[in-house]
Amino acid sequence: MLLLATLSRPPVRRRLLPICLLHHRNIHAQPPPAPPPPPTIEYPLSHPIYAIWAANTSLGKTLVSAGLSIAFLNSSCSSKSKKFVYLKPVQTGFPEDSDSRFVYCKFSQFSLQNRPKLSVFASNHVINTSFPALKALLGEDSKYGSFGSEKVGHFGGAFENLGWYEETKLEGAENDEAKGVGLCSELICKTIYGWKEPISPHLASEREGARVEDSELLEVLMRGVQSGDEEGGDRNVDVMCVIETAGGVASPGPSGTLQCDLYRPLRLPAILVGDGRLGGISGTISAYESLKLRGYDVVAIVFEDHGLTNEVPLSSYLQNRIPLFVLPPVPQDMSNDLVEWFEKSQTVFSSLKDVMLSAFLRRVRKLHHMRKKACDILWWPFTQHEFVSEGNVTVIDSRCGENFAVHKTSNLETITQQFDACASWWTQGPDANLQIELARIVGYTIGRYGHVMFPENVYEPVLECAELLLEGVGKGWASRTYFSDNGSTAVEIALKMAFRKFLLDRGIHFDQLKVNASERYINLKVLALKGSYHGDTLGAMEAQAPSPYTGVYQQPWYSGRGIFLDPPTVFLCNGIWKLQLPKKIQVENVKMDDFCFNLRDEIFQETRDASLFASIYSSYISKELSHVNSIPYTDIGALIIEPVIHGAGGMEMIDPLFQRILVKECQSRNIPVIFDEVFTGFWRLGVESAAKLLCCQPDISCFAKLMTGGVVPLAVTLASEAVFEAFVGESKLKALLHGHSYSAHAIGCSAAVQSIKWFKNSQRNVNLIPGADLLRELWDTELVHQLSSHPAVKRVVTIGTLCALELRAEGCNAGYASLYATSLLKKIREDGIYTRPLGNVIYLMCGPCTSPQVCSQIMNKLIRRLDEFSEVKNVGACQP
Amino acid sequence: MLLLATLSRPPVRRRLLPICLLHHRNIHAQPPPAPPPPPTIEYPLSHPIYAIWAANTSLGKTLVSAGLSIAFLNSSCSSKSKKFVYLKPVQTGFPEDSDSRFVYCKFSQFSLQNRPKLSVFASNHVINTSFPALKALLGEDSKYGSFGSEKVGHFGGAFENLGWYEETKLEGAENDEAKGVGLCSELICKTIYGWKEPISPHLASEREGARVEDSELLEVLMRGVQSGDEEGGDRNVDVMCVIETAGGVASPGPSGTLQCDLYRPLRLPAILVGDGRLGGISGTISAYESLKLRGYDVVAIVFEDHGLTNEVPLSSYLQNRIPLFVLPPVPQDMSNDLVEWFEKSQTVFSSLKDVMLSAFLRRVRKLHHMRKKACDILWWPFTQHEFVSEGNVTVIDSRCGENFAVHKTSNLETITQQFDACASWWTQGPDANLQIELARIVGYTIGRYGHVMFPENVYEPVLECAELLLEGVGKGWASRTYFSDNGSTAVEIALKMAFRKFLLDRGIHFDQLKVNASERYINLKVLALKGSYHGDTLGAMEAQAPSPYTGVYQQPWYSGRGIFLDPPTVFLCNGIWKLQLPKKIQVENVKMDDFCFNLRDEIFQETRDASLFASIYSSYISKELSHVNSIPYTDIGALIIEPVIHGAGGMEMIDPLFQRILVKECQSRNIPVIFDEVFTGFWRLGVESAAKLLCCQPDISCFAKLMTGGVVPLAVTLASEAVFEAFVGESKLKALLHGHSYSAHAIGCSAAVQSIKWFKNSQRNVNLIPGADLLRELWDTELVHQLSSHPAVKRVVTIGTLCALELRAEGCNAGYASLYATSLLKKIREDGIYTRPLGNVIYLMCGPCTSPQVCSQIMNKLIRRLDEFSEVKNVGACQP
Repeated sequence: MLLLATLSRPPVRRRLLPICLLHHRNIHAQPPPAPPPPPTIEYPLSHPIYAIWAANTSLGKTLVSAGLSIAFLNSSCSSKSKKFVYLKPVQTGFPEDSDSRFVYCKFSQFSLQNRPKLSVFASNHVINTSFPALKALLGEDSKYGSFGSEKVGHFGGAFENLGWYEETKLEGAENDEAKGVGLCSELICKTIYGWKEPISPHLASEREGARVEDSELLEVLMRGVQSGDEEGGDRNVDVMCVIETAGGVASPGPSGTLQCDLYRPLRLPAILVGDGRLGGISGTISAYESLKLRGYDVVAIVFEDHGLTNEVPLSSYLQNRIPLFVLPPVPQDMSNDLVEWFEKSQTVFSSLKDVMLSAFLRRVRKLHHMRKKACDILWWPFTQHEFVSEGNVTVIDSRCGENFAVHKTSNLETITQQFDACASWWTQGPDANLQIELARIVGYTIGRYGHVMFPENVYEPVLECAELLLEGVGKGWASRTYFSDNGSTAVEIALKMAFRKFLLDRGIHFDQLKVNASERYINLKVLALKGSYHGDTLGAMEAQAPSPYTGVYQQPWYSGRGIFLDPPTVFLCNGIWKLQLPKKIQVENVKMDDFCFNLRDEIFQETRDASLFASIYSSYISKELSHVNSIPYTDIGALIIEPVIHGAGGMEMIDPLFQRILVKECQSRNIPVIFDEVFTGFWRLGVESAAKLLCCQPDISCFAKLMTGGVVPLAVTLASEAVFEAFVGESKLKALLHGHSYSAHAIGCSAAVQSIKWFKNSQRNVNLIPGADLLRELWDTELVHQLSSHPAVKRVVTIGTLCALELRAEGCNAGYASLYATSLLKKIREDGIYTRPLGNVIYLMCGPCTSPQVCSQIMNKLIRRLDEFSEVKNVGACQP
Repeated sequence: MLLLATLSRPPVRRRLLPICLLHHRNIHAQPPPAPPPPPTIEYPLSHPIYAIWAANTSLGKTLVSAGLSIAFLNSSCSSKSKKFVYLKPVQTGFPEDSDSRFVYCKFSQFSLQNRPKLSVFASNHVINTSFPALKALLGEDSKYGSFGSEKVGHFGGAFENLGWYEETKLEGAENDEAKGVGLCSELICKTIYGWKEPISPHLASEREGARVEDSELLEVLMRGVQSGDEEGGDRNVDVMCVIETAGGVASPGPSGTLQCDLYRPLRLPAILVGDGRLGGISGTISAYESLKLRGYDVVAIVFEDHGLTNEVPLSSYLQNRIPLFVLPPVPQDMSNDLVEWFEKSQTVFSSLKDVMLSAFLRRVRKLHHMRKKACDILWWPFTQHEFVSEGNVTVIDSRCGENFAVHKTSNLETITQQFDACASWWTQGPDANLQIELARIVGYTIGRYGHVMFPENVYEPVLECAELLLEGVGKGWASRTYFSDNGSTAVEIALKMAFRKFLLDRGIHFDQLKVNASERYINLKVLALKGSYHGDTLGAMEAQAPSPYTGVYQQPWYSGRGIFLDPPTVFLCNGIWKLQLPKKIQVENVKMDDFCFNLRDEIFQETRDASLFASIYSSYISKELSHVNSIPYTDIGALIIEPVIHGAGGMEMIDPLFQRILVKECQSRNIPVIFDEVFTGFWRLGVESAAKLLCCQPDISCFAKLMTGGVVPLAVTLASEAVFEAFVGESKLKALLHGHSYSAHAIGCSAAVQSIKWFKNSQRNVNLIPGADLLRELWDTELVHQLSSHPAVKRVVTIGTLCALELRAEGCNAGYASLYATSLLKKIREDGIYTRPLGNVIYLMCGPCTSPQVCSQIMNKLIRRLDEFSEVKNVGACQP
């Protein structure tokens, strides 16, 4: 039985004679597997692993792979044995085309004529094929027939788990068997999935009823990659691994996902096989750009010479950033065995191999040096450098959707996936698809606009963004959009808006102030809640109650220009939602039951407006406000709240009833109301705007973070028309004179447009409950209850994309400066979850599109680690 | 004499018979033209103009063009005559290949067999060819021979200005000549440049010694485009214009510039001819991404069916955002005249044409509606909306390098170029090349990282950026980088750093403060200069003297926590640099001459440290500082200055000697010194850091704006190690607790890395004086003197990329709120220069890479408009 391999290079097809026996090891049928969960990406850094891409089909990827195998296994060094692993994850046209067999055969033919120094065991495996491909392999007549020595089983599944295997031993020049196998090299070639028809994999897998999911393919591929490392990073074996893709960079894989997207979670360094023909400059550049746009590092470009000196414009385009290699013209004569061509090409392949090896070493060295350099020259925010040793620094190699790829040095050195449970500090929303969409849209926007200044100008992205904001988070009340750079500036702008509105409403007009400009006869205060946090610039800080962030040692100018109320909070403990009142709010005749809720939704019900608590809150607020009125020259110019959740303040959930009544009390007194939705906005809490949860509307509202899907800073302050009108008049000095050079920058607006639309499109965001403008529950109820009953846990808050818990801790173990959670956090990171605590508060945060399965996975891991933690800390049971 | 045209679709070549006579109109030799200045881009919006691109060579762009010409000229509507303009700017393989002739012939053949409704005049022109192409056209034997009725002249130039012309009239079905020519349609086909060899244009132009510069090609092309509009937007003629590119999207043009970059200044809407073959999905997607990355709008994709249903994955990739068209398979038989194929394809071409027409109408409609919408829902910073009528709003369609493309509605409606003389509010640096580099690098960074949070983490772009900052603008003193979002936050951080350092230096330690946290026993002030501006957030505002920006009506919380000194200024008047002292600085025995400088460089000389002014400044400063010391509980915790230029304060140049002495006086008193280089940094003033101009170093320094090359917000506060150490200790509360979610975001850092390197690379930045770390003088000395002597001008400041002038004005005409310059500005904008004043101060600002020729162009225009302005205002002569 022959396995015929051809170079996938139509129209010149070469049929090769087999040069060794083909064994059949294991064929048995399998039921179609259930779609597996997304695999955890991890690959070793003990040896180089490259992906070979091409600008088009039939440009010679396989020739390059074969040439590399020869160059690598024949390279002169020396006292080590070598291993070259070639993987072809997706092969169509099988068995007539088999690139893994081509590499295997060419290497063998070459070695027979040019004896390698060391002996080489070469092998070719074919792991899975579609049924038609298997049939073709067995021949029409031998259907279900015997093959080799074993019987072929029945074919029930989509794929036949084949065990085709062929091997050969090629004697080395220097080293015969007598000298022992320790210095014998190895060539391993593997085809992972094969289909019969010589068409695009997505078509072949459809037509042959043999589809493989991306996650499955990645998982199998990773096993293949790790097989290069069976020696566990043995220093006496030099290993190199190449993975050859199919067709062009953006050709669809078996599931239909473009291959450049399919393999993106691995982000392997790339070799691009370019096109040396007429028109090939363009194709090569475009393919390169498609790879770059997905975050790949292209290490070298190689192409066949067609006498057109395509390397000249290509190298000018590349500005010498990456090396270009030109291969001699490939003989078109089908009978040519190419051995001579490989001989002629060896200098090129050898240099290419050297470039690949040194780029690999450079990469690993860089990953190593980054920790120290970071400690030496960076200054991290909110970080006590004294506590950060080199070993604690996380080196982030890339991210893909919700996951970081980090450099791990413990045991085997790897690139390993970590779930970004900080949602990169509360900004992230994109899954892997949206991330690439954003790369494309932002690239387009820079190509189109770069940055263009905003005042009195208009350009498409800003207008589209403003419209989406007013139709979305500002719906029903906002009519103007004021853009700035971050949450803090958005809040400063909001305060300026509110104060102006307040002054005008009190009849204090601009002209009067012009006369008396220097006379600050009014001491404007802001009404805010204790524990809320509105940003780090002074104006925003002044609107928050004293906290670790506002100490004189942090900002000597802070004075706290607010009236700060103590809010009632709600949280989950032992599976029950509980309301906790601050000391200042006194209650009588309230039953214990009234403090408890079975469901979180009950807390948000508007019917609570008629409850006893409503009147209790109302009178507390009235009392506080009338107290302020009695202070001479002092007035409350604005209310500012973070709706529902105090983020940086420790992930506290505030009783929404309290906030609603507070808003109503202020609006009845004509005090402008600001919602600081910088944290809560854009689905963070499961709804687009948290105002919806409060069932009331502000006059001014601030958004940032998730607005751009979490790629670039952009903030917006929305305002009602009445607020806007307070700034319209006959003088420029009456205008709002606050702005930043990048106000409403096109890039941010474009990213926001894309993200805002994506999150609320149920075709893109599977978590969206159609028609309800609501995310489904992402955190498994059972697990949440389990968490809230855990002895180490004081309270839990889950809502939308947030799952937070406060560890039971006392004294210096509690609060923002606490290091209590450090050991726990370390373990959680080892489990592949990146978290960073707020003192003794730990949270898991996902994106609006994260699958609930993933949320359950990370919650389970957290619970397991909490068990260990509470054993060590010996914490007592939760006392409700 | 025959001009043979073939469809550029190897290997199937079709030789066509001529269907009408070819006339020769005008051949005469021309000397090789001097490279013309970059043309001003302008094209009409009276009719659609499309560029036809392809994913590769030989995919049928010309078939699509011909099909469109047939569909357009045969479309049923009606009472109007039609004109289809086909332009082929770059044709290689000429005369054997001539796409314009192919379109002309195919249309004619089709029309002979399918009579159009209206009669059509069809013509084909060939304008310029290389000499070899001409020779081939004339035939070897007829070299220099006669042609048609005229003699061929001598061939001296690189290009032969040909006048090949052929025309034919095709009788319409409905409309014969008797009914008049008013309803006769027209097909105009033009080849603009032709080369003989059928290779890439950059090779052909090199080999044939006939090179055309990009600017020349664009200019000729624009004339061709406008020729569609000879009727001046005649409502009775429907016009459509298509420009067919050569090869693939990124194939080099004649100069070697990739065509997608070459045509970018026009940014015409694109039709992409995709690839229906195996591998064609990838090529089509990559080509599409290359176009998008350069800011093109792709309106439709069309490709030939090869039975592979490539439209399925393509449409899934495109998410139905743009329509896909599939053409029937093209007969491969060379004798086929394709008329039948065109008939079969008419439904497709007709739909494609409709899509193109409606996309054009949608675009124009959008451009029209944007002004009103902008006035309705946007809220511009620093803008009194009362003054902005719809007509005043600038609709920015795109930018390319230093130029906006704006929508102009006066007279003929066009897309017109405006030089962005605000450097988009002081952020811009990129030329057109860097802009595309930034699109690519930012796209890559999002593809690779999206955003990853910063604290305790490290990733390549942040480290590389930090290293470049410390080796560049921080060289010699800075050792730490603290990233934030904009200049204002960078300044707030700088103040926090300085105050902490100050407190520690005074022996006030953290532990003491912990005990007394609420006790603000020290009133920390900042020392600053009047007229300086440090940002809009409250903390930054407090560091500036009262101004229009700080009024109680703007920010009731502002109190001005500074000691604000009056600085001496320098400016150019009547060609002489003059020093002007504030009233507070008294001088005796100083000669008038000492106040004057012939050269700007003299002002910056360190030898002035020994001058009389040095001691005058020194004693003024000492006196002011000792005055502060006498106020109880008050201390100066920091000095903050904008080195050399007060930007937002009105483009005032401060005497660098004064600033240097101020820095020294503070450092001798152990007062931390902050340089606010948000405006001045990164070559704005001709040097990378303006500190170099002052010849002294700060302890802390702030950068933003130009740092990312002007694409996204990113700021950094640099600090010395001593400053950093003031935050290191045993408690998290001692750390600097200021940060933003996007701190050190990867995108901004990548853009910064690219830009910082680009600006200081003399291969990229032609303005850089090699070895001097200095930009050459960008503003022509003669013109600057002319400006400074203009009667309407009070003072001029030119340095680096800045050329500012203050208009003579008094009373309400002077100052920030002044509208004095409005009429002048309007005129300047009409001249294609986008400016926005600071009251009665006008400035021109370019990028570090802008060519001095362009600077002279815009200065000349400004001077001309100033002449008109002063005539109208009747301003008196400058009194020095």
